[in-house]
Amino acid sequence: MARSLLAAEQFLDEGFQAQITAAAAPLGFTARFYRSSQEIGEEIREAEVLFGSGFSDRLREARRLRWYCSSFAGVEHYMDPSLWPAQDCLFSNSAGAFGVTISEHIVMVLLMLLRQMPAYQRDLARRAWTFYAPIRSIRGLRATILGMGDIGTHTARTLSAMGAQVRGVRRDISKPADPAFKEVLPMERLEEVLPETDALVLALPSTPSTRRVLDRSRLALLPRGAYVVNVGRGAAIDQEALMEALDTGALAGAALDVMEPEPLPPYHPLWRTKNLLLTPHCSGNTSLGYTRERIVEMFLEDLARYAAGQPLLHAVDRSLGY
Amino acid sequence: MARSLLAAEQFLDEGFQAQITAAAAPLGFTARFYRSSQEIGEEIREAEVLFGSGFSDRLREARRLRWYCSSFAGVEHYMDPSLWPAQDCLFSNSAGAFGVTISEHIVMVLLMLLRQMPAYQRDLARRAWTFYAPIRSIRGLRATILGMGDIGTHTARTLSAMGAQVRGVRRDISKPADPAFKEVLPMERLEEVLPETDALVLALPSTPSTRRVLDRSRLALLPRGAYVVNVGRGAAIDQEALMEALDTGALAGAALDVMEPEPLPPYHPLWRTKNLLLTPHCSGNTSLGYTRERIVEMFLEDLARYAAGQPLLHAVDRSLGY
Repeated sequence: MARSLLAAEQFLDEGFQAQITAAAAPLGFTARFYRSSQEIGEEIREAEVLFGSGFSDRLREARRLRWYCSSFAGVEHYMDPSLWPAQDCLFSNSAGAFGVTISEHIVMVLLMLLRQMPAYQRDLARRAWTFYAPIRSIRGLRATILGMGDIGTHTARTLSAMGAQVRGVRRDISKPADPAFKEVLPMERLEEVLPETDALVLALPSTPSTRRVLDRSRLALLPRGAYVVNVGRGAAIDQEALMEALDTGALAGAALDVMEPEPLPPYHPLWRTKNLLLTPHCSGNTSLGYTRERIVEMFLEDLARYAAGQPLLHAVDRSLGY
Repeated sequence: MARSLLAAEQFLDEGFQAQITAAAAPLGFTARFYRSSQEIGEEIREAEVLFGSGFSDRLREARRLRWYCSSFAGVEHYMDPSLWPAQDCLFSNSAGAFGVTISEHIVMVLLMLLRQMPAYQRDLARRAWTFYAPIRSIRGLRATILGMGDIGTHTARTLSAMGAQVRGVRRDISKPADPAFKEVLPMERLEEVLPETDALVLALPSTPSTRRVLDRSRLALLPRGAYVVNVGRGAAIDQEALMEALDTGALAGAALDVMEPEPLPPYHPLWRTKNLLLTPHCSGNTSLGYTRERIVEMFLEDLARYAAGQPLLHAVDRSLGY
């Protein structure tokens, strides 16, 4: 009997389906495809491998599950062991696929803040032709990036190519770092670099250890006129303290693609915060062709390894939460 | 008697004034500073060197003028020989100082177009939390840059570092080109590359030969879904044809920092054109510290050369108009 692989992900068009089917067949798998996990019927009980998103309330039904590969990067919704049919199920994610698109978002919003684009746009919306000064440049900017994974690394490369001085801060500094990071510091030394940071970029996974990593006291260490960009998870920042720093002018600007809560309710004070550029958690979406291709490629790499009994390349470390 | 150097430029603060005064004195020049050329009195008659902006209607009064250095890049307002007190006056500009800031503008607006940022912002303005797909990436983008001076070169470097395939098109292909340009073509071959162009960037000076370089027939050669960015001069594009291409969806988007006329009057149809990101000729403004420093550095380099009777490094070629 063929082994069962069920994939639920909207972007898996005919081309991707053919690619997955062709790669799975020689490994003994029959692949079936769904637009969402909710469309899967009782056949989920026989699934050995699940691939896609939105499985947190379906996993437990998959009694024969051996491996779930998430097509997303964030895994905090799967950390509760009671969601899983068995505690020895393999779990992997697609964290390496979003660096390009999220780093492009970061560069875009950082330039928009530095060049006062929201102020220009407000005036242009009423057809007024105005000038703002001063603007600032990425050239010579002292950028500190928290999180040196795929997102942080792509961001460092672009900012460094544009002339910024880029520092990286991470939990484990024994890992190899891209040469675009001129300096690498452990999280414990974050306080040292904050006073010398013009732009702080948070590209951290959502884990207990990254919660409120930018708290009120650390925010206060940033120099007057600094910028903050968050694309990781909203919980990384003390939002109250950030709003105050923006409204009082202590910070020159911030861009949040993630916040608490999401979606942001219409009455939330973040909407009215000064010099704050909000986006609706769109930096890492899967509409980018490159991202989709990487997600599928990474899954198929690991499918071959799984079938051969080798360790997965993109396994989630449940103890770290990413 | 000391030779007279008059400088009229708003951004010349005390630091820059001291720098210029100190460099000019050993060369036999006394420097005087004004916020604008209109503040200069009869002493303009004795000026040997003028430096700054807004001199087109004052030059002729400077009967002893030997050299005018413009703090701007565009020189089209000085091409009329009747504006000058003598036809052998030297003329230089600051064209090399704007590449960093204008290339940052180009990267910003290109990312905003590729990532549908104006659509997100329209929804966010009414506190709606929405999603747009698909977005596109600079990675793999086929970018064609018209004009390979300081602006085009800085843009090519950044886009290339972000993974774009960058072609350059220029009048004189015998000049050395930055390695960020994967291919360099003469202006006569522009038609060949337009069908293979996802993003067309115009970074051209305003000269008779660049007028309507992107005319209706060339615009029609761009593939459906292409983007156009213009930071040079508005006259380079057939605006009517561009508006049609945007409104009919033939082009996916355009960003104009320059247009005809400027400032854009409130009733102008450009304001209502679909997928058009307008900015008020702010890409190359002199509010950026780096730009100001480069303008002054370039002037002082040439001041030393002028005093030594050497040719100016930043001389305008009156026959080419840049």
